[in-house]
Amino acid sequence: MFFKSRDTRMCVSAPVFNNFGKVEKILIFRTPSINFFNMPLISKKGNLMPDSPIRKLVPFADEAKKRGIKVYHLNIGQPDIKTPEVALEAVRNAKLKVIEYSHSAGFLSYRKKLVTYYKRFGINVTENDMIITNGGSEAVLFAFMSCINPGDEVIIPEPYYTNYNGFAITAGVVIKPIVSSIKNDFALPAIEEFEKIITSKTKGIVICNPNNPTGYLYSREELEKLAILVKKYDLYFFADEVYREFCYDGYTHFSAMNLKGLEQNVILIDSVSKRYSLCGIRVGVIISHNCDIMRVAMRFAQARLSPPTFGQIAAEAAIDTPKEYFTEVYNEYIERRNFMVGELNKMQGVYCPLPKGAFYSVASFPIDDADKFCEWLLTSFNYKGQTVMMAPASGFYSNSEMGKKECRLAYVLKIEDLQNAMETLSQALKIYPGRTI
Amino acid sequence: MFFKSRDTRMCVSAPVFNNFGKVEKILIFRTPSINFFNMPLISKKGNLMPDSPIRKLVPFADEAKKRGIKVYHLNIGQPDIKTPEVALEAVRNAKLKVIEYSHSAGFLSYRKKLVTYYKRFGINVTENDMIITNGGSEAVLFAFMSCINPGDEVIIPEPYYTNYNGFAITAGVVIKPIVSSIKNDFALPAIEEFEKIITSKTKGIVICNPNNPTGYLYSREELEKLAILVKKYDLYFFADEVYREFCYDGYTHFSAMNLKGLEQNVILIDSVSKRYSLCGIRVGVIISHNCDIMRVAMRFAQARLSPPTFGQIAAEAAIDTPKEYFTEVYNEYIERRNFMVGELNKMQGVYCPLPKGAFYSVASFPIDDADKFCEWLLTSFNYKGQTVMMAPASGFYSNSEMGKKECRLAYVLKIEDLQNAMETLSQALKIYPGRTI
Repeated sequence: MFFKSRDTRMCVSAPVFNNFGKVEKILIFRTPSINFFNMPLISKKGNLMPDSPIRKLVPFADEAKKRGIKVYHLNIGQPDIKTPEVALEAVRNAKLKVIEYSHSAGFLSYRKKLVTYYKRFGINVTENDMIITNGGSEAVLFAFMSCINPGDEVIIPEPYYTNYNGFAITAGVVIKPIVSSIKNDFALPAIEEFEKIITSKTKGIVICNPNNPTGYLYSREELEKLAILVKKYDLYFFADEVYREFCYDGYTHFSAMNLKGLEQNVILIDSVSKRYSLCGIRVGVIISHNCDIMRVAMRFAQARLSPPTFGQIAAEAAIDTPKEYFTEVYNEYIERRNFMVGELNKMQGVYCPLPKGAFYSVASFPIDDADKFCEWLLTSFNYKGQTVMMAPASGFYSNSEMGKKECRLAYVLKIEDLQNAMETLSQALKIYPGRTI
Repeated sequence: MFFKSRDTRMCVSAPVFNNFGKVEKILIFRTPSINFFNMPLISKKGNLMPDSPIRKLVPFADEAKKRGIKVYHLNIGQPDIKTPEVALEAVRNAKLKVIEYSHSAGFLSYRKKLVTYYKRFGINVTENDMIITNGGSEAVLFAFMSCINPGDEVIIPEPYYTNYNGFAITAGVVIKPIVSSIKNDFALPAIEEFEKIITSKTKGIVICNPNNPTGYLYSREELEKLAILVKKYDLYFFADEVYREFCYDGYTHFSAMNLKGLEQNVILIDSVSKRYSLCGIRVGVIISHNCDIMRVAMRFAQARLSPPTFGQIAAEAAIDTPKEYFTEVYNEYIERRNFMVGELNKMQGVYCPLPKGAFYSVASFPIDDADKFCEWLLTSFNYKGQTVMMAPASGFYSNSEMGKKECRLAYVLKIEDLQNAMETLSQALKIYPGRTI
């Protein structure tokens, strides 16, 4: 244990463990005005919570900017794509005089409209199968809280969306990772691999499809293989489909909601953040045909009263976004992806799979340590006054050794910026002291 | 245990326990299309989560409205007060083209402006002492998650804000209630009573001031007595001050942030919901001078990415609400309070203390059971086509027997509506079958 007892708490340092019991770093408590003898301790879960690998380099980026350096942000899935005008207009024109709580499950009008949205994708749900949440984030939290007991396990192919760690720790859920390798372009690991790690504590599988951070698009066949396992072991299937619209090269998305026989097992996590470039409004949704789960999730929803009013207004209106918007966005992302992945693979020793979905990819680099490399890019390098910020992949793996040479890149910047970013990155790899070729 | 094992889960009913281990009700699982042999179970915490006592009667109210009955909502703290125009205008005029994630701690501009807001109340904080949250709700959750380990205890005078239960269950925190009695108008219980229930597991005290549901305003002297205890036992002091502005009869609010020597112990929970009638925007804040706690709370904040953009825009602008707005609101609430409490105390067998803060009061009624009475008002009674919805106080107590004759009333309706509501309630008490006088 790293917590000192009540009587001997003169500690000035404490190791921080990652979600998997490994020491991540040593915290030094700063003590300017603190009387240690009278300071209550922080919680164990608080200590377990990882710093965001996506945002932890932000202070270095801020410093670089202060020095006048242009930083290309490939580290975060914040698209520069314009929000549909129809959504912004709805907020501007809202005629509310009192901004009241909405229904804890969200506006009925919005939920009804979502029914029509999902119908377009062949997903049949009713307004009672859904609860609008504070972003997809809260949907994941409600799903874990409603379905899984502290100490129980969910299996997630890694690298995985790092914030699952935060919600797992909050809910006391143990994540059992299963490696999807860059060597296979991050395809679904063999079903036997899943079966090997299923225990009596295993309660669910989480699949993000299309995947963040890898951009991998799971096929219907892959999902159907998983479905057999889910059924066999009576698990929950948590399907994070927030990138549903972002599928390329003629591939289409198959929703876990349409897996036959899994109606009571599937919990859909969704969000409007990326779909309509509405990240800031914090509107997501949790959906399931399992009415017991929805009844329980509703209690968590009631405790926090309601999702945000203006966000719901924007999200409801956004469903009427004209088709051309998506065509334009689609073409833009295809161009960006092809360019960025193409450039990366031209660099000596770099490998980047061509992702079929979302707007991320994980690439491997000829370097000693991606965390060091990403920090170095911000603190010690610039090319023509520019540098690049990426997310070291270590934070997306349970074992930071595994992602040690990999970074996640989000192709969320316009081509011109991506050109500069790739040129800069290419130059950096030539002089980075920790390069391995 | 009420959970059947993996092999024998043909259960069709299960008791729901309240936060304190008492059976609250028996759930009957509905099974139209469900194969029980292949349905995963809901979580223990999900089963522990209480239905909201504030909202659980909503279906009956909806039914009453369908029958054409006018329902006066005294059950929920949703004021009919208009939102300040300055806040609505800011949202209408926001010139954003892309609704991006904000900083996980919230807009810096908003936090800086909050510093000036708090200064007006003699509360000295910096923009780094605060994290903007999804409503006060998330602030409570972050506070519990960052400070308290599962199984550890916080003491809360009861009756208390019922949603603390939800956040306590989420975080695995055990609430140890201590009775503040209607006989003393819900004053702070004797310090000896607090000391009696402090154990090695006690990690904090939660004080909502002014109080929801009782409207009680804790004095500086009461808080200073608590402070000695907090210091002596090295506890956290969670101060929920969302009703700060709502203090009457010349009394002023004393913030726990100004308790000397408690700088590292106090965690302030705040929200703009009631202050500016902005309930729906979901913007709150967690504040502390304890930088270890804030660092850890920030990890929880990062996991959920950011608070809502439009809400923050509204909240930031609302800080410039003209003084006259508050004077008007203040006068309105004073009039409502005096009228409602006066009318209640005129009714035979009813007692309602005169609350000095917030806009709630808990009154005792000459009835068998407040839950039954409140349901009866909605299902079986009307006076001139009208009825009243109140929140049975049982949900605000750990032991539902204690609040059995009490209801919470929010005086959030205009005088004319309150007049009708009180007349209706008075008539109802004359014919309610379970009346005790």
